[in-house]
Amino acid sequence: MKTVLLIGIGAGNPDYVTMQAVKALNEADVFFFLDKGQEKEDLINLRRTICERFIEDKSYRIVEVPGPVRDVEAPDYKSGVQAWHRDKAKIFSDLIGNELADGEVGAFLVWGDPSLYDSTVRVIEHIIAEGLLAFEYKIIPGITSVQALAAEHKIALNPIGEPVHITTGRRLNEGLPDGVDTAVVMLDNGSGLRALIDEDVDIFWGAYLGTPDQVLISGKLKECVEAIEEARSEERKRKGWIMDTYLLRRKPRP
Amino acid sequence: MKTVLLIGIGAGNPDYVTMQAVKALNEADVFFFLDKGQEKEDLINLRRTICERFIEDKSYRIVEVPGPVRDVEAPDYKSGVQAWHRDKAKIFSDLIGNELADGEVGAFLVWGDPSLYDSTVRVIEHIIAEGLLAFEYKIIPGITSVQALAAEHKIALNPIGEPVHITTGRRLNEGLPDGVDTAVVMLDNGSGLRALIDEDVDIFWGAYLGTPDQVLISGKLKECVEAIEEARSEERKRKGWIMDTYLLRRKPRP
Ligand SMILES: C[S@@+](CC[C@H](N)C(=O)[O-])C[C@H]1O[C@@H](n2cnc3c(N)ncnc32)[C@H](O)[C@@H]1O
Ligand SMILES: C[S@@+](CC[C@H](N)C(=O)[O-])C[C@H]1O[C@@H](n2cnc3c(N)ncnc32)[C@H](O)[C@@H]1O
Repeated sequence: MKTVLLIGIGAGNPDYVTMQAVKALNEADVFFFLDKGQEKEDLINLRRTICERFIEDKSYRIVEVPGPVRDVEAPDYKSGVQAWHRDKAKIFSDLIGNELADGEVGAFLVWGDPSLYDSTVRVIEHIIAEGLLAFEYKIIPGITSVQALAAEHKIALNPIGEPVHITTGRRLNEGLPDGVDTAVVMLDNGSGLRALIDEDVDIFWGAYLGTPDQVLISGKLKECVEAIEEARSEERKRKGWIMDTYLLRRKPRP
Repeated sequence: MKTVLLIGIGAGNPDYVTMQAVKALNEADVFFFLDKGQEKEDLINLRRTICERFIEDKSYRIVEVPGPVRDVEAPDYKSGVQAWHRDKAKIFSDLIGNELADGEVGAFLVWGDPSLYDSTVRVIEHIIAEGLLAFEYKIIPGITSVQALAAEHKIALNPIGEPVHITTGRRLNEGLPDGVDTAVVMLDNGSGLRALIDEDVDIFWGAYLGTPDQVLISGKLKECVEAIEEARSEERKRKGWIMDTYLLRRKPRP
């Protein structure tokens, strides 16, 4: 039997890895890295650092392959993502099928936590559902960018007894559901920042959380949206890519 | 200057602690444990285990005090919780004021992640806002029960591109906001389990996640609600307390 580990490595700081993840890293014979193009090289490097820092007295190999490219021109978002998942499933099953011997343990290092806006679990489920490959798999949770955001800003996500809503830039632009006054926004290309600009909203924004490049800005949305947009485009120019997340808290409407 | 660390220890498995938390544990001179009565003794014991397992070559002391009791008869939930926070603030400032010498590091070990349905951050903010005590503080994120739930059931929290709503049993009983079809429910006394019973809903339920007592049940809500209720009351009888969390996924309404 082959075993596949989906290891959440946390969202930025190598020290976000858990003891459970360290144990899992030390069980793996092969690590599969999907290369996502130049701008994501930094993310691959963090994975290398994690392997080097936390694996002891164990030989392992790294298999690096180019990741599929998501067709951003697909007729709608969901079908674009689904096609991208199918491409990924093909790559993953080739890796598990050809690069992993029977009895060996393979690992995918997942940014943040595997349960949050990440395709790896779905792709593995898809491969298993197809029934072409047999293997066991296990998920190891990791610190999400949402938790990094809260810890670095020193805030609670939820107001007392109230819900927390985690959403995307795309969905935020369609408006928040009634009764939802706290939202964490991920996967935003920047357009979501002004979605609630006319309301009484506080923002807690963070980019490259947990890394040496971390930037934090917080305050009344109206008063700091420009500073955030500026930081966003400057950082993006400087590093070639940006990853940011923010929490919006609006005064509940009466 | 005194330093206070709020260390997220993860929600059950001692191996959920992160490397960042291990480093923080090794910096602390004093650990403050709030005793929450007999049924929570197990949770105090896990904190002891974590100290013993991960602190190396460093002497530390543990100060254990009785935690405040929340007045469950308070006129409304929020004011009950607020009064409880004030009592906690009194206890915390006595601890930081009297049990921590200048230059020392004190630590609170927070179950799961400090950002999610936990009062510690708010209580510390309250003490600082009052301006009676000066100290620095830092938050170290931890694995939440939400992530433990997803990892153990091997599921993603969000449907592709869709939001994730984290809420409480109390709020679930008032109904889910329009457009929200995935909800993680925490702090439920069991009454939330039947809130969506008439709809087409899948449930992924977990109790004592990450611990040797872990119980998982999943399937169509209608078909497994009784098994869950039974497990809930049996486990509760057996251990004297229960901690459970679940994810509900309903078919989006057209
Ligand atoms: C594809 S999702 C993956 C989320 C990841 N699984 C997690 O648990 O955080 C990528 C989004 O996560 C957020 N993100 C991830 N890491 C981040 C970081 N270090 N700083 C800020 N945002 C981050 C950004 O919103 C980004 O668009
Ligand atoms: C006061 S909240 C604290 C949440 C914690 N800060 C976290 O990050 O998970 C307590 C609630 O968390 C959930 N919970 C915490 N630990 C759990 C565990 N090991 N298994 C199942 N549910 C858990 C339950 O819903 C419980 O009512």
